[in-house]
Amino acid sequence: MEELQISPAHALGSPAKEQRAAGVGILLQIMMLVLSFVLGHVLRRHRFYYLPEASASLLIGLIVGGLANISNTETSIRDWFNFHEEFFFLFLLPPIIFQSGFSMQPKPFFSNFGAIVTFAIFGTFIASVVTGILVYLGGLTYLMYKLPFVECLMFGALISATDPVTVLSIFQELGTDVNLYALVFGESVLNDAMAISLYRTMSLVRSPTSTGQNFFIIVVRFLETFVGSMSAGVGVGFTSALLFKYAGLDIDNLQNLECCLFVLFPYFSYMLAEGFGLSGIVSILFTGIVMKHYTFSNLSDSSQKFASAFFHLISSLAETFVFIYMGFDIAMEKHSGSHMGFIFFSILLIGIARAANVFSCSYLVNLVRPSHRKIPMKHQKALWYSGLRGAMAFALALQSVHDLPEGHGQTIFTATTAIVVLTVLLIGGSTGTMLEALQVVGDGHDHPLGESLEANRGYRAPTYDGESSSGNGFKMKLKEFHKSTTSFTAMDRNYLTPFFTTQSSDEDEHDELLGDPRRGGFRGRE
Amino acid sequence: MEELQISPAHALGSPAKEQRAAGVGILLQIMMLVLSFVLGHVLRRHRFYYLPEASASLLIGLIVGGLANISNTETSIRDWFNFHEEFFFLFLLPPIIFQSGFSMQPKPFFSNFGAIVTFAIFGTFIASVVTGILVYLGGLTYLMYKLPFVECLMFGALISATDPVTVLSIFQELGTDVNLYALVFGESVLNDAMAISLYRTMSLVRSPTSTGQNFFIIVVRFLETFVGSMSAGVGVGFTSALLFKYAGLDIDNLQNLECCLFVLFPYFSYMLAEGFGLSGIVSILFTGIVMKHYTFSNLSDSSQKFASAFFHLISSLAETFVFIYMGFDIAMEKHSGSHMGFIFFSILLIGIARAANVFSCSYLVNLVRPSHRKIPMKHQKALWYSGLRGAMAFALALQSVHDLPEGHGQTIFTATTAIVVLTVLLIGGSTGTMLEALQVVGDGHDHPLGESLEANRGYRAPTYDGESSSGNGFKMKLKEFHKSTTSFTAMDRNYLTPFFTTQSSDEDEHDELLGDPRRGGFRGRE
Repeated sequence: MEELQISPAHALGSPAKEQRAAGVGILLQIMMLVLSFVLGHVLRRHRFYYLPEASASLLIGLIVGGLANISNTETSIRDWFNFHEEFFFLFLLPPIIFQSGFSMQPKPFFSNFGAIVTFAIFGTFIASVVTGILVYLGGLTYLMYKLPFVECLMFGALISATDPVTVLSIFQELGTDVNLYALVFGESVLNDAMAISLYRTMSLVRSPTSTGQNFFIIVVRFLETFVGSMSAGVGVGFTSALLFKYAGLDIDNLQNLECCLFVLFPYFSYMLAEGFGLSGIVSILFTGIVMKHYTFSNLSDSSQKFASAFFHLISSLAETFVFIYMGFDIAMEKHSGSHMGFIFFSILLIGIARAANVFSCSYLVNLVRPSHRKIPMKHQKALWYSGLRGAMAFALALQSVHDLPEGHGQTIFTATTAIVVLTVLLIGGSTGTMLEALQVVGDGHDHPLGESLEANRGYRAPTYDGESSSGNGFKMKLKEFHKSTTSFTAMDRNYLTPFFTTQSSDEDEHDELLGDPRRGGFRGRE
Repeated sequence: MEELQISPAHALGSPAKEQRAAGVGILLQIMMLVLSFVLGHVLRRHRFYYLPEASASLLIGLIVGGLANISNTETSIRDWFNFHEEFFFLFLLPPIIFQSGFSMQPKPFFSNFGAIVTFAIFGTFIASVVTGILVYLGGLTYLMYKLPFVECLMFGALISATDPVTVLSIFQELGTDVNLYALVFGESVLNDAMAISLYRTMSLVRSPTSTGQNFFIIVVRFLETFVGSMSAGVGVGFTSALLFKYAGLDIDNLQNLECCLFVLFPYFSYMLAEGFGLSGIVSILFTGIVMKHYTFSNLSDSSQKFASAFFHLISSLAETFVFIYMGFDIAMEKHSGSHMGFIFFSILLIGIARAANVFSCSYLVNLVRPSHRKIPMKHQKALWYSGLRGAMAFALALQSVHDLPEGHGQTIFTATTAIVVLTVLLIGGSTGTMLEALQVVGDGHDHPLGESLEANRGYRAPTYDGESSSGNGFKMKLKEFHKSTTSFTAMDRNYLTPFFTTQSSDEDEHDELLGDPRRGGFRGRE
């Protein structure tokens, strides 16, 4: 926000006048934030699911942007909102992404680990490539604005980052299956990391300085970004766990010190990865997951409560701000015809790409799961439907404006903003109806959310005694993969948890089962 | 911090390299923050009062700055730390100032209201003018760098803003008289507002566009800034109190909404004042005082805990960062001889000015107080000694670099930074010894801190039956003033508290007496 005061576009007025104008701009933003929170609260209280909180924020942004557009007397209103992406990348995005990792309830996540990883890694790869190819074909056939192939793949990667906020908050309100919830949540969290890594890889391939463009180098670059950032994040997370385990800060009057240190670690992880030229976002995401799973339990009780509330608060503010900004941006944008076509066909194509992701991955997962744990078709449909786009796609599109020349980045940015706004409004507004139509809400179901944590225990580390032995080699490999994720759960319980936390794993389990399931992960980020 | 990435000084490298360098810079800052917190904790645990937390942060900044100076291989390290003052004014200063208002325990503050206001308003005015005149005389006699008279008064105003952090944290550790504590705390909080208003008034008088320079216009301008900003702050605070009283958000599952709104109000107050061309800092300070006294009790219990911890955390981080930065800055500064002389004589002169403030105001206060409540000489000495300078003086000096031309601002900035560093190190380090020498610590005293809250009740709204009736007209006027502050306490209890909070005043009192005196205001900002 500080950028507002020193942006060159303000050169018209005197410094004092500028500063005052910037003050009024920020004031307006704060008022829109307050309005969003209050409106979201009123709508939720009246169980009006057609306009979730994110949509409300978007609409407020749209309306204020529209008003600013009409009353063109004050031309500088556009500039007030024109924050630099540095502000976005340093202050708004890290808390949102950290919270998405931090709010993840480890248990259902790990019990569906294999499926989530399949959807997030393999599925996002499919979705990106399919979108990229289809957009390229669309360009070739003059249906859409024509982009070079690598840029199509970049667009495919960035638009494949899904956002769970709105859908998940409705899942919670209505109460849905805990495994479906874990799938949607886990997939949308991890696919951010995948989408960023793919985007960065393609961006490196595109750059004029890149030497070889063969497939091998691309794969190495992708692994460098993904595995490097993940290791940095996990490393920082484990370091924090050991620090809090042995520093003995969990006495009550050191709460402030404990919280200060706890709050600094995610940002440290972010900056460490950026300093190494890796992805800070991917790093902070994994730091969030590790810190929730290990470090968190080493905190004193009051600090645990504080840390949860703190990250929830910060990310709510950042997220609401991003949605308001997106609405404002789309209202101020001057839309050309080519953009309209691009937006329309993109929405169509990402629907197809998401279908390719969800249904093929579900097929693979179902091949390996025992019959009682297969992902039912209605869950697959719900998963397909919940692929709305949010802050992450917006962030990467913002990045692409700088990465791509000749207005291509601008096209991608405009299209992405429009897609985010439309999917949030349309999908967000109809999720309740969809869930009811698919009959995945309420009583009739096996494991309604929040009551099945106990039942969920049975899922952990399931043993497959080869009860459905098929000779198929591919299937065998899938099973091995599945077993490795199962053994990860066992390793976590037997080695990682005792090493990094002060609790034995039994204690841990006990704690979590006693804990209010509506707190933490299951509340998502409303 | 984001400024680091786009500062023109970075034009040397490629954008990616710049961004990475900025990442490393921020990383270094985070590590210094962590180190400061850990070091401060270790020192406090070992009861080593010669190096309080603020001094430790300063020293870390000094050492890292010194190392950076020696190893001149990486010249851009200076740039990493060269944050714009916009970052400082929008993100670091507001939480520090809000917290200083918010952490003020209302009861001892209001029972010493008359004395505090005398010290803060009248005393700061004396100190500013005395410093300004002495510095001007120093310039005339070639002892110091010569500045124009108005600029001397600006320097006098900004250097009169005292900072309580270090002294108060030691007061708490050692346990001192509750009234002395309230005096030191209240004076240093309110004198910030006075110093800013005086500084801004002088700055307006100095500006070439200013028309009349007669005394009347100066007074009007001062009142405009001071009363206007105060009213804005108090207004926002009262609005928030009414909102939380009637919105019915204090149910447990709305904690996030409640906290989001609560956190937005101070910033709203800051920006509102800035938008009107007033002082945001003065406004946010009064918002802090009002929100603590009225709004706070309308929150749910969990939100109260959260809000206290949240503001404490944010201000600790901001404050530690500012002290680190000041140490770093002084180590990197190239000092010329004239600056050295200016610094040396300034320290001498502000000591004299503070004596003029403390002893003359104490005399006035003692004229009107009954004999058992007079401020004893040892308290006056302690009050004089605790006038170290901190973030506020630094902030105004940063401002003066822009306000004053021809390197005058730079001289003031360098001198102020040096004065802050020296007073924090010297006074901060010797406060423990001083308190013991003055015998205002421990058991022998009337009302040791934390145990005398009960006794403190007796102080409230004391009635003066004219038991020491002196015919002196001046004294009568002082008494009238004192009575008006007394009647403010009564008005607060009878009208304001019932109107703005959900509690009756009895309940309120009960709560506070039961509350842990070490939490909130009395812990200050360690």
